[in-house]
Amino acid sequence: MDASTLQLIIPVAGIAAVLFALYLARDVLSRDKGTQAMQDVGDMIREGADAFIKRQYTTIGILAVVGAVVIGAVITAFEGKEVADTNIFGLDLGWRTGIAFLVGAACSMASGIIGMYISVRSNVRTAAAARRSLVEAVQVAMRGGAVSGFLVVALSLLGVYGIFAAFGGLSGGQATHDAPFLIVGFGFGASFVALFAQLGGGIYTKAADVGSDLVGKVEQGIPEDDPRNAAVIADLVGDNVGDCAGRGADLFESTAAENIGAMILGVGAFAIATAAGWPNPQAWIFFPLVVRGFGLLATIVSIFFVRGREDENPMNMLNRGYWVTTILSVVGLLITTNVMMNTGTALGANGIPAWVWFFGAGVVGLATSVAFVYITQYYTAGTFRPVREIAEASKTGPATNIISGTAVGFETTFVTAITIGIALWLSHFLGTQAHLTNADGHDVGGIFGTAVATMGMLMTTAYILAMDTFGPITDNAGGVAEFSRAEAGAREITDRLDAVGNTTKALTKGYAIASASLAAFLLFSAYIDKVNLIIGRQIEAGTNAGRQLLTSVNLANVDVFIAALIGAMLVYFFSSLAIRAVGTTAQSIIVEVRRQFREMPGIMDYSQRPDYARVVDITTRAALRQMILPGAVAVATPIIVGLLLGHQAVAGMLMVGTIAGVLLATVLNNGGGAWDNAKKYIESGHLLDDKGNVLGKKTPAHAAAVVGDTVGDPFKDTAGPSLHVLVKLLATITLVLAPLFIR
Amino acid sequence: MDASTLQLIIPVAGIAAVLFALYLARDVLSRDKGTQAMQDVGDMIREGADAFIKRQYTTIGILAVVGAVVIGAVITAFEGKEVADTNIFGLDLGWRTGIAFLVGAACSMASGIIGMYISVRSNVRTAAAARRSLVEAVQVAMRGGAVSGFLVVALSLLGVYGIFAAFGGLSGGQATHDAPFLIVGFGFGASFVALFAQLGGGIYTKAADVGSDLVGKVEQGIPEDDPRNAAVIADLVGDNVGDCAGRGADLFESTAAENIGAMILGVGAFAIATAAGWPNPQAWIFFPLVVRGFGLLATIVSIFFVRGREDENPMNMLNRGYWVTTILSVVGLLITTNVMMNTGTALGANGIPAWVWFFGAGVVGLATSVAFVYITQYYTAGTFRPVREIAEASKTGPATNIISGTAVGFETTFVTAITIGIALWLSHFLGTQAHLTNADGHDVGGIFGTAVATMGMLMTTAYILAMDTFGPITDNAGGVAEFSRAEAGAREITDRLDAVGNTTKALTKGYAIASASLAAFLLFSAYIDKVNLIIGRQIEAGTNAGRQLLTSVNLANVDVFIAALIGAMLVYFFSSLAIRAVGTTAQSIIVEVRRQFREMPGIMDYSQRPDYARVVDITTRAALRQMILPGAVAVATPIIVGLLLGHQAVAGMLMVGTIAGVLLATVLNNGGGAWDNAKKYIESGHLLDDKGNVLGKKTPAHAAAVVGDTVGDPFKDTAGPSLHVLVKLLATITLVLAPLFIR
Repeated sequence: MDASTLQLIIPVAGIAAVLFALYLARDVLSRDKGTQAMQDVGDMIREGADAFIKRQYTTIGILAVVGAVVIGAVITAFEGKEVADTNIFGLDLGWRTGIAFLVGAACSMASGIIGMYISVRSNVRTAAAARRSLVEAVQVAMRGGAVSGFLVVALSLLGVYGIFAAFGGLSGGQATHDAPFLIVGFGFGASFVALFAQLGGGIYTKAADVGSDLVGKVEQGIPEDDPRNAAVIADLVGDNVGDCAGRGADLFESTAAENIGAMILGVGAFAIATAAGWPNPQAWIFFPLVVRGFGLLATIVSIFFVRGREDENPMNMLNRGYWVTTILSVVGLLITTNVMMNTGTALGANGIPAWVWFFGAGVVGLATSVAFVYITQYYTAGTFRPVREIAEASKTGPATNIISGTAVGFETTFVTAITIGIALWLSHFLGTQAHLTNADGHDVGGIFGTAVATMGMLMTTAYILAMDTFGPITDNAGGVAEFSRAEAGAREITDRLDAVGNTTKALTKGYAIASASLAAFLLFSAYIDKVNLIIGRQIEAGTNAGRQLLTSVNLANVDVFIAALIGAMLVYFFSSLAIRAVGTTAQSIIVEVRRQFREMPGIMDYSQRPDYARVVDITTRAALRQMILPGAVAVATPIIVGLLLGHQAVAGMLMVGTIAGVLLATVLNNGGGAWDNAKKYIESGHLLDDKGNVLGKKTPAHAAAVVGDTVGDPFKDTAGPSLHVLVKLLATITLVLAPLFIR
Repeated sequence: MDASTLQLIIPVAGIAAVLFALYLARDVLSRDKGTQAMQDVGDMIREGADAFIKRQYTTIGILAVVGAVVIGAVITAFEGKEVADTNIFGLDLGWRTGIAFLVGAACSMASGIIGMYISVRSNVRTAAAARRSLVEAVQVAMRGGAVSGFLVVALSLLGVYGIFAAFGGLSGGQATHDAPFLIVGFGFGASFVALFAQLGGGIYTKAADVGSDLVGKVEQGIPEDDPRNAAVIADLVGDNVGDCAGRGADLFESTAAENIGAMILGVGAFAIATAAGWPNPQAWIFFPLVVRGFGLLATIVSIFFVRGREDENPMNMLNRGYWVTTILSVVGLLITTNVMMNTGTALGANGIPAWVWFFGAGVVGLATSVAFVYITQYYTAGTFRPVREIAEASKTGPATNIISGTAVGFETTFVTAITIGIALWLSHFLGTQAHLTNADGHDVGGIFGTAVATMGMLMTTAYILAMDTFGPITDNAGGVAEFSRAEAGAREITDRLDAVGNTTKALTKGYAIASASLAAFLLFSAYIDKVNLIIGRQIEAGTNAGRQLLTSVNLANVDVFIAALIGAMLVYFFSSLAIRAVGTTAQSIIVEVRRQFREMPGIMDYSQRPDYARVVDITTRAALRQMILPGAVAVATPIIVGLLLGHQAVAGMLMVGTIAGVLLATVLNNGGGAWDNAKKYIESGHLLDDKGNVLGKKTPAHAAAVVGDTVGDPFKDTAGPSLHVLVKLLATITLVLAPLFIR
């Protein structure tokens, strides 16, 4: 097959995925909505989520328009002819970057909004299905989640492809060569939206969770999701806006960033291919998008494999689909590398063609994805040593529970760092074996190998995201069942699904952080390419004769070291702000719920209905107010450091900030997940005392585990996931604003 | 004055400090030992501490001898003529490095042992003095602490000077030029001892603390330091072996590392001075030792300023002495830079002599020291916002207390990183203004400026360490008073001193971590100098023609990035092991104390005396066993990374590991300190409910704050301080083993 024919798969797969998402949405929406009581709760959740999303996306939309104008103006003012990396500069580049930023922001927001639209309608249908069948409930929840998964990946793919085409990327030759540099604004727009979507949603969900638990469970002694708690609807809304919309925006950004970063690297290979006269040089630029297209097709097929027996562990059904996606992705990768990486008669090491080496690198990426799925399960699922250790420590009270959970959280960085290290080293090594050398004699295959590994890893994104959104849908379904006092059988099924959902939510975070680190490494390489393109032109044009190419980011340079120190500090400071925002917002919820209990005495005996909407409203306002400061710090810090310390230093900040962010996010996500499951481990009666008696609910050990769970909430659902976004935001900001930092 | 005359201050000040320490020790030992009951407790603490120190230092001594032999053998085998940085190589270099390692280890151990000898005798004398006078109690505790302070700094100075002299450093010319490279083993030996002293002591002290609290306070409901608790003596012993011996070894290492690193950098200035014909070129090498000498003299004077009125805040008396030390240090620095940095007719920027610029850099270091003292107080003392915030959060239970404390801990990285960043940037900038350019045309003044700043900062070490040891002595004095049921007035005075001691312990950690980061940056520069010396010789000799000088540590290199990732991970993994070790050791204590309560029923009504010695013995064995794994990980990781990924990558690991270690230690130290003082804030009745009632001891808010305090214990007293040592160990290991990593 010809490479240019294979390119057609990009729009085809993108549109197919959108259509398939619509089909799934129709399928889910056509299903039974359950009892009237269920529908009532469902309506309340939907209204609350709609209200939050409407207000949040209005805020984010305004911020994005302001951001686009500022970016456009800054680029117009500073990126003149002498610092531009292509022949398009000044106002021409400014409006293009602004538009790309807006399109990126709009695609991210659209996929978030539509995904939410379906997920808040899937919850009640999942609860209804649970009254009849486990398998059907799994399918409804998974299909509802898949709508998000497909839309996120497809809109990211179509968005990049569309803006690339609009900026002349399909014209061939120099225009194709230049286009990747014009679309970096798309990635920045996606990062920008993701930052605020994740922060706002993350603060909302955990403030509502912590606030409702502290007043309801702790002060009033009523169960979780009890309708007498005025904050319970806010809590259920939070599951959707935090886990579903937040993670969607996070992975939208990863795929967009990876597409753009890999395409910029592809420009280097394009030049080599053109010089060597290989067929279809532009295939190296389109390659990442084609791989993504195959990933989408693989995922469409796999959705039909999510099925099983009624008595089966639901996790097995989801795993089945995941393995189908992975295996089909390997096949897609094989086809793509074979067709598109045609190096003519040139061979790599040992006489093996280049494409085989890159195929190997892609498989490394897919294997990394699998590794992270299982590593996260080991650290956060109840059957293994880490969670058991925390549960045991709960016997001596909350302090030892916290100490033990912290030790586990810290420990998880070991296998994370080693796995990422091996993946990077191996894919880089395989890439160097392809013998791709540029005009200056530098190897570019190694870094391209890491790019292919990142693509391989991200091929399964749509499926992973479907599994992730499965989490809040089943969590909500459980809430709906409890709230509507559904029959015991339904509640039992939703409980089983909820436990699986906890695992899928945790493993998505592991996947997201690993892909964030690889994507950031890619964007970092793109940043260096861009800086050198600019400096190269300046040297050529004689506008800046004293300048040298950026051949290294030298940690021994004092400015770089200071910037690196600030980058590593930023991840702590940002997390501190995010965690504190949860506390502040929870405080406003607590005050309001207490007020309702005090002023509406009929609530406790069900004779008065709490004012759920007011709590939802208060939470919405507070969360949106609280997301501004951490967001502003995240955006401002790289700009300030870049302006003060220059282009080399900001690269150091980016790299070390990425390392620090990945590790701290790992600590927060896994620590939080392990605490959560240690509590569940005790609740399901696995913890025994010295004499073999079960230490279950209502024991001091359980109370200690609840403390750990509450502490873990803002760690794993607010600060940790926000760090994924921060890491990529650092990369896209520096990439877009590179010309400002050159000195 | 002539520079070579001024050099004489090195042995003079060192010996003067030792003699002054002996005078102080005599003074303390001659004082009233209090009631018989006090002496009995004091004896038990002393015996326990002696037993631990004896066994711990035997273990460390054996490890050190093994370490010395291994290092010597490795150097002999691998550092042959072609990779040696001086004309001494192979066996000649091997035995010298082994001896230097042993001397460093022995000096560190000696200062730890003698310091402990005095501090476990000062506690009961402080308690006795507290029966009469606050000022006298302050003076006894401070003088007892100063014995440690002076011995640590003086032995570090005399040790480096002695081994330097023994290896020909006083002979002038090439021998003086070579000698700094021969003594790096001294720093490694000091690091090695510090690692195990800090780990063993840190695990011991917090395991005893947590273990005794959990059984005594939580399970049996008896007060802290109650004689019925079998673990109480172990707890009191722990204050000494952790805080006193551990921090002493930590700062011994900082001063040794800084001396050696700065002397190696001085070799570069020596070459410039020789070439330019400036008077006394060797003064640049001796400069760090002379500065240290002046710091000691300044501290001797300042001890006499620790006095005040009976009704005064004891912190003011200590601050008075600190300011005297700082001001005299500025004078000493002025004299040293003026006399020793004689650049003849050459001038720096703006026609200002080089020494003035370096004097400025030194003042920056002293100012940094002052800044850290006050920053730490802001974050950990009860009167300011952070601690109040945690105390307020305790009202809603342990979970919000932990969340709030974590947010505060994370937040403290901000001002820490910014302060270190400004200090580095400013001292580097001032250094470049001195116009010190080497034969290749590279500026060496900048990095020398940061070295001078580090020296300035470390001039006050002896005083800071005296204040630190003041902490465990007064803490113990309080325990002795409680245990011996001393009169209320004495107890009240020891309580006031104990509160001050908490602050001084916290600020010493801030000081230690800041100086560790600067010392590591210095050793890092020394590492690059050493690697380039070796590679330069190889290129010259033609033994390794393809090799290039290490001009940068390039983060964009995949190997460097991976090593950096592993370096940042190591600090989490190491902390995880240290924290878990506390949990495991505490568990053995809990089991034993429970057994004693069960099998000796007379304990509760005072008719039976618990078997304190057995608990001390069990804690000792467990702590020593538990320190091995984290210690081995710390030593092995840089060696493995260096062997696998090479000399550039290991430099990246070192830098990023340092950044990550400094920040995580800041989080752990300050978070722990803030939790501790939030509890104290509540205990002293500062927390009010909505209606203005005091929420004091025995309220749920206090119980929540106790949880935070317990969580903070292993953070701030085991993992945090061990990270200081880890950071410097990474630097000294890579420096000593550099030839193994060159590829």
